[in-house]
Amino acid sequence: MDSMVTCIAPVNIAVIKYWGKRDEKLILPLNDSVSGTLSTDQMHAKTTVMRCKDFTEDKIWLNGKEVSFSNPRLLSCMKEIRRLSRESGTSEDIVNTKVHICSENNFPTAAGLASSAAGYACLVFALKELFGVKQDITRVARLGSGSACRSIYGGFVRWHKGDLADGSDSIATQIAPPSHWPLHVFILVVNDKQKKIGSTPGMQRTALTSELVQYRIKESVPKRIEDIIQAVKERNFDKFAEITMKDSNQFHAVCLDTYPPNIYMNDISHEITSFVHTYNELFPKPKVAYTFDAGPNACIYLEEESVPDFAATLQYIFPPEETLESYFKGESVQFGTVNEGLRTYPQQSPGLLKYIIHTKIGDGPKRLDSSEDHLLTLSGVPVKNGP
Amino acid sequence: MDSMVTCIAPVNIAVIKYWGKRDEKLILPLNDSVSGTLSTDQMHAKTTVMRCKDFTEDKIWLNGKEVSFSNPRLLSCMKEIRRLSRESGTSEDIVNTKVHICSENNFPTAAGLASSAAGYACLVFALKELFGVKQDITRVARLGSGSACRSIYGGFVRWHKGDLADGSDSIATQIAPPSHWPLHVFILVVNDKQKKIGSTPGMQRTALTSELVQYRIKESVPKRIEDIIQAVKERNFDKFAEITMKDSNQFHAVCLDTYPPNIYMNDISHEITSFVHTYNELFPKPKVAYTFDAGPNACIYLEEESVPDFAATLQYIFPPEETLESYFKGESVQFGTVNEGLRTYPQQSPGLLKYIIHTKIGDGPKRLDSSEDHLLTLSGVPVKNGP
Repeated sequence: MDSMVTCIAPVNIAVIKYWGKRDEKLILPLNDSVSGTLSTDQMHAKTTVMRCKDFTEDKIWLNGKEVSFSNPRLLSCMKEIRRLSRESGTSEDIVNTKVHICSENNFPTAAGLASSAAGYACLVFALKELFGVKQDITRVARLGSGSACRSIYGGFVRWHKGDLADGSDSIATQIAPPSHWPLHVFILVVNDKQKKIGSTPGMQRTALTSELVQYRIKESVPKRIEDIIQAVKERNFDKFAEITMKDSNQFHAVCLDTYPPNIYMNDISHEITSFVHTYNELFPKPKVAYTFDAGPNACIYLEEESVPDFAATLQYIFPPEETLESYFKGESVQFGTVNEGLRTYPQQSPGLLKYIIHTKIGDGPKRLDSSEDHLLTLSGVPVKNGP
Repeated sequence: MDSMVTCIAPVNIAVIKYWGKRDEKLILPLNDSVSGTLSTDQMHAKTTVMRCKDFTEDKIWLNGKEVSFSNPRLLSCMKEIRRLSRESGTSEDIVNTKVHICSENNFPTAAGLASSAAGYACLVFALKELFGVKQDITRVARLGSGSACRSIYGGFVRWHKGDLADGSDSIATQIAPPSHWPLHVFILVVNDKQKKIGSTPGMQRTALTSELVQYRIKESVPKRIEDIIQAVKERNFDKFAEITMKDSNQFHAVCLDTYPPNIYMNDISHEITSFVHTYNELFPKPKVAYTFDAGPNACIYLEEESVPDFAATLQYIFPPEETLESYFKGESVQFGTVNEGLRTYPQQSPGLLKYIIHTKIGDGPKRLDSSEDHLLTLSGVPVKNGP
């Protein structure tokens, strides 16, 4: 076992949403969820973990800045990794060695793009390598940030809510690898001034006050989980799209049914949904699907063949404030033709969207083997100084 | 019986919302609803109905312009009034006489302020007088526009969904007269460019596609109806406020759970809800309650004693684009002091609200006895030409 390990891990975007916990401490969800894992080529968390018998305490640097190790979720992950390491037969002196951790995201944390999911998935995956853990680690990632467990696998992933009180059956499993259905994804980053309500207090409030969330959990989600898994397995895009959009809407509906309400989507978000529905109505079956997490940014799933025309139409209706070149980031886009049916649709003011990230379904976390990738020096301090 | 009758009828604002029909033709709702009737001093529909044996056909003028009489809802009301008139013992020659109708609102129809409810209540109330109808007419008003049945009474009114297939038990009844609890009402007219989805197609789509609306109808509404009736009877404002706000949010939640979603509230609407919750948190119990119909405008219920300080704080946080004098319409407002707790709340850009109508709970429809009030001349044509 190496004493220094560096990994990257992906962001994931739920298509059946997780919202509400049955256990706050163990981060056990009220319902199953399903997500797509996004390629680490465009967005990833990167983490270096190092153990050294000379270290006197566990330390962590996030985006270049040392922060306290006393975060209960971080401590909970560390404790569990050490326990699993011991169970996996790793020697006691390795298990007890202190660690230094350095982690950063290659995308803005503030953008509300599931940064904590990628971050904890990366941390736990790297620690697994460092401590020779052989068991399922999705349970451990879950202890850091619920949806982090879904970033442990590539492709399409299901997080099972589990039934046991200790949470040991609340794990993530892969539905299909990325090669099965390499859908494309556009992330539409909305220009927004509003401060959003954090996910943890937001979901606590929903679980406590929404009457509709009970129906969602018991009736809507279980059926949708089965249906979307089948849609993924069959690569049935229109079925996938309809369930994805309905579930996003229902998630925001229960947020609105919360008291006081949790409002995450804004007028720009609703402009996007209206545009997507109008676009889809031009075809016999839906071509694109929106989904919104706890923020105003849209995540659009679409098949590769739909990318050129949709991209052209999107930039026509939502024009950039500046140049088209800086508007689309990530994978290159071949622009097709603006769909004629949208020519009469009202063009929006330039700049409603900050930028668009073009990415696709990709792999799970991976180790980077080159020493140049490490974020810590051999003496265990960050290679780069903080910002 | 006079051969010309002129009446005015009030607008009503639901606190437990009606959304979705179990019968489109008879306009039978999926759930009971409760509303407050607003004073006709500020907003009303006014209708003159006239019968004359010389008239060769039924005719109608709306806001000064003749429109077709072939509207099925209008025909349905006329047919039912003539049937009830016959049952009430009115002579057959009167029953069969053709009518001329002239109707107008003293507030903008386009503002989305329940104009059809006031209009049909006024029409049916005036026809009742003209044709000597003695039975319940809320059922007839319902045939014109569902919520019109609630505008037949003053104070607080319940519309019973009824269980019979013919709709004969789907009537409105008064919970309490206006003197029992003369609550004040501010209508915040939002500056908005969006075109809203009409109520009829909007509620059809919700009934067809929302999974959550089933739960709302079966579980949430029946309990809320009982609770809010008790709150009205006890004049328990904080209980009334909480149920009102929760039900408005839940109504918009099921609209969002509709596919494609019905979006009626906008960013300004949500700014208002956020402001109201922040305002209420400064007191041990809620002082004001918002509710939103199928549009972005807020309707705020509050007790008389809360008016001065709330008005001062409201105009401080949502400043007028022009002068304060033209900002508040309707009943005069004595401005109190801006609540200190809101001094740090972000002041909004001037002009988010077009204007604010100050009104209160008031009486049901009434006859105007002066001949100057008639909208038709003695020969049965509008007094005023159309716009």
